[in-house]
Amino acid sequence: MTIFIQPETRQETIGKLNEVKQTFAARGWFPGTSGNLSLKVSSHPLVFAVTASGKDKTKITTEDYLFVGKDSTAVEETTLRPSAETAVHSIIYQTIAEAGAVFHVHTIPNNVISELYGDLGHVLIGNQELIKGLGIWEEGAALAIPVVENYADIPTLAAEIEKVIDSSIPGVLIRNHGIYAWGKNDFEAKRHLEAFEFLFEYQLQLMQAKQSFAISPSQLGIKIV
Amino acid sequence: MTIFIQPETRQETIGKLNEVKQTFAARGWFPGTSGNLSLKVSSHPLVFAVTASGKDKTKITTEDYLFVGKDSTAVEETTLRPSAETAVHSIIYQTIAEAGAVFHVHTIPNNVISELYGDLGHVLIGNQELIKGLGIWEEGAALAIPVVENYADIPTLAAEIEKVIDSSIPGVLIRNHGIYAWGKNDFEAKRHLEAFEFLFEYQLQLMQAKQSFAISPSQLGIKIV
Amino acid sequence: MTIFIQPETRQETIGKLNEVKQTFAARGWFPGTSGNLSLKVSSHPLVFAVTASGKDKTKITTEDYLFVGKDSTAVEETTLRPSAETAVHSIIYQTIAEAGAVFHVHTIPNNVISELYGDLGHVLIGNQELIKGLGIWEEGAALAIPVVENYADIPTLAAEIEKVIDSSIPGVLIRNHGIYAWGKNDFEAKRHLEAFEFLFEYQLQLMQAKQSFAISPSQLGIKIV
Amino acid sequence: MTIFIQPETRQETIGKLNEVKQTFAARGWFPGTSGNLSLKVSSHPLVFAVTASGKDKTKITTEDYLFVGKDSTAVEETTLRPSAETAVHSIIYQTIAEAGAVFHVHTIPNNVISELYGDLGHVLIGNQELIKGLGIWEEGAALAIPVVENYADIPTLAAEIEKVIDSSIPGVLIRNHGIYAWGKNDFEAKRHLEAFEFLFEYQLQLMQAKQSFAISPSQLGIKIV
Repeated sequence: MTIFIQPETRQETIGKLNEVKQTFAARGWFPGTSGNLSLKVSSHPLVFAVTASGKDKTKITTEDYLFVGKDSTAVEETTLRPSAETAVHSIIYQTIAEAGAVFHVHTIPNNVISELYGDLGHVLIGNQELIKGLGIWEEGAALAIPVVENYADIPTLAAEIEKVIDSSIPGVLIRNHGIYAWGKNDFEAKRHLEAFEFLFEYQLQLMQAKQSFAISPSQLGIKIV
Repeated sequence: MTIFIQPETRQETIGKLNEVKQTFAARGWFPGTSGNLSLKVSSHPLVFAVTASGKDKTKITTEDYLFVGKDSTAVEETTLRPSAETAVHSIIYQTIAEAGAVFHVHTIPNNVISELYGDLGHVLIGNQELIKGLGIWEEGAALAIPVVENYADIPTLAAEIEKVIDSSIPGVLIRNHGIYAWGKNDFEAKRHLEAFEFLFEYQLQLMQAKQSFAISPSQLGIKIV
Repeated sequence: MTIFIQPETRQETIGKLNEVKQTFAARGWFPGTSGNLSLKVSSHPLVFAVTASGKDKTKITTEDYLFVGKDSTAVEETTLRPSAETAVHSIIYQTIAEAGAVFHVHTIPNNVISELYGDLGHVLIGNQELIKGLGIWEEGAALAIPVVENYADIPTLAAEIEKVIDSSIPGVLIRNHGIYAWGKNDFEAKRHLEAFEFLFEYQLQLMQAKQSFAISPSQLGIKIV
Repeated sequence: MTIFIQPETRQETIGKLNEVKQTFAARGWFPGTSGNLSLKVSSHPLVFAVTASGKDKTKITTEDYLFVGKDSTAVEETTLRPSAETAVHSIIYQTIAEAGAVFHVHTIPNNVISELYGDLGHVLIGNQELIKGLGIWEEGAALAIPVVENYADIPTLAAEIEKVIDSSIPGVLIRNHGIYAWGKNDFEAKRHLEAFEFLFEYQLQLMQAKQSFAISPSQLGIKIV
């Protein structure tokens, strides 16, 4: 399939992706050239820009993104290869109609929590103000963020992801393989991703703190005066 | 209520808030667009500048703040909405006469410690030089920093905060909802906030370190020569 | 041995090393002026550029690198001294024919994990997507990254490293003395190093999280609604 | 005592201190305006530049330092006040003849380790390559870094510090009050400080890792293939 991308669309899309890429790169969210970003430019037919495979995401070059369709192949002539994981982006856009941007990053907390809760099949998070950062405003809300196994076969992985995601929670963890988070645009996808990362790190730190919590101030050298 | 904000006051106020905002954003203190900042411009009547709702606080635009009064509504025409939590800023200015700036941020340590000590109703901190960063110079001072429950109803939350705060400790924790810290101006509020964050992280790390502390050097592979 | 380094080769080599140096310095990977970087310019005879001894690696000066041969001495006139550890770089280039860049850094995770697994002689890592960042794509791959003792005598250290390294795993840990990681060029060596660091930190954090993991959501204050 | 500081000396001294200040500020090593830096300009009589009291050390202004003598008072007319802790800098310069720069910072690791080892009176560190960053090259060296109690009375604190420091270890911890580290110049003092901080964080992380260390790879989900 060949589709003509308007120059202004191309420029605006790449500009937004570059901004997100630089912000996340500065946080170390693309270790070892991992991770990928996409931004939808058309729903019918599905067309989205996605990071090219194997690039150092701390840098900005003229060959960092390509435009692909539903089948994850380029919609225009290019020497760039899309990431093998482009199929995961595509399945998310196909499943969640309102998704306009999909971001995939590896962090220590999202990998550790995916392994901890992997057997359970979802990470349980609750009792936290930052849940509102996911666009969930129900009081006392608890979330079950899905975790799928890290299938090496990408069609299998995409099919498993399709089974577990819905529009109520804007993200999915792959066991020991980071998170995919999305939103209606780059701004919202970034907000969702930051909220997820905060919630994961909070939960991990809280579990450790609970274990060592000593209510007795004297054990911490605190004298009440 | 409509109040005319002098152009120089406007410019100076926004300049100070932008500086604080950029510093905190670089530290990741506004995850998922959370957090808010305010700076008082008048006590009688109460008028303060506050961050507009739902903005990405890593960016500087011309629409990041608005000026509001005691009732948390704008004192001039604007298309911006103040955060729902503006009422918390207002209640702090009303309760603590000397407060000139109020900063609210979410960090992993301030959220974890608020949950750990939530049932107790206050975080006990002591035996730490950085307590002087809060303007408390009494030797051997121990602090009981109040923690209130995270009421979804903002008037209830504001009323609970009003009950527990006083001028001796320049901050209050909301359980799983970050800290509000204040000072007579932006400089002092920032100093107080940094001191609180240091004290929280210190306490959490110390609790964990105490648990694993091995006095025997040989266990750590240390040979005395 | 005296060898003439082409000006363009010199400039390109130093430019690449400077870029890596600045990136790693910003991450705090050269604590206390530790660490060193090298880039091969010729295989026959072996010639490589290496960081000069005792410099502050957060800075760029005109005297940061020198070109040395197989015996770790300069191949041109210079007042700079190569690090004593240059012999380790040399032995890696001699042992791994495809190595074109060798980077040595100290981080808390790489030092801690080297001590934890030191008696075992290797760090076992597995079940992690980022293993692909090491160029290892076999499904379910587990790695045994070698750890050698920290011999103060550099020829002994180099000989021990020669014994344990091969082309299947692009790095080696020295016990309490950081990691040496390599790749066919600066881009690949950086990717390998970032993948190793992620894997080490992941493993350490996972071990601690497993210990404190409470499956019961109520213990974490989560209410299922 | 009034002493004329040469303009070039003044400019060079302040330039060096500004560079160190910006580097440490970016690392968050001055929480809540804590910490102070000094650089010696003359031994006989003792004159050194020191950070003025109560400044935000993330900023560069024309009023950040003053020049003081042995008695910690200004040697020229100034409206600036030296920190009360200037007396600690002075006693270090008086006790360690070769000290040319003294840096004092608060970090979570240096505060936590000072409390852990406070009763023992010294932190035991050993078996670590980074000890060489302190200028100590003896193989298998173990260090006993002194920890003094945090006396609120500065002359008492200075007298206690004088008792425990010597030229073999370039630093001293104050319990829950950070570290003072020194070197013959700003470059060496920075190297020493970075090495201390690495060693403290290493020791704390190692203690926690040892506690959770599971040699069995299957517990970490690693399959040997």
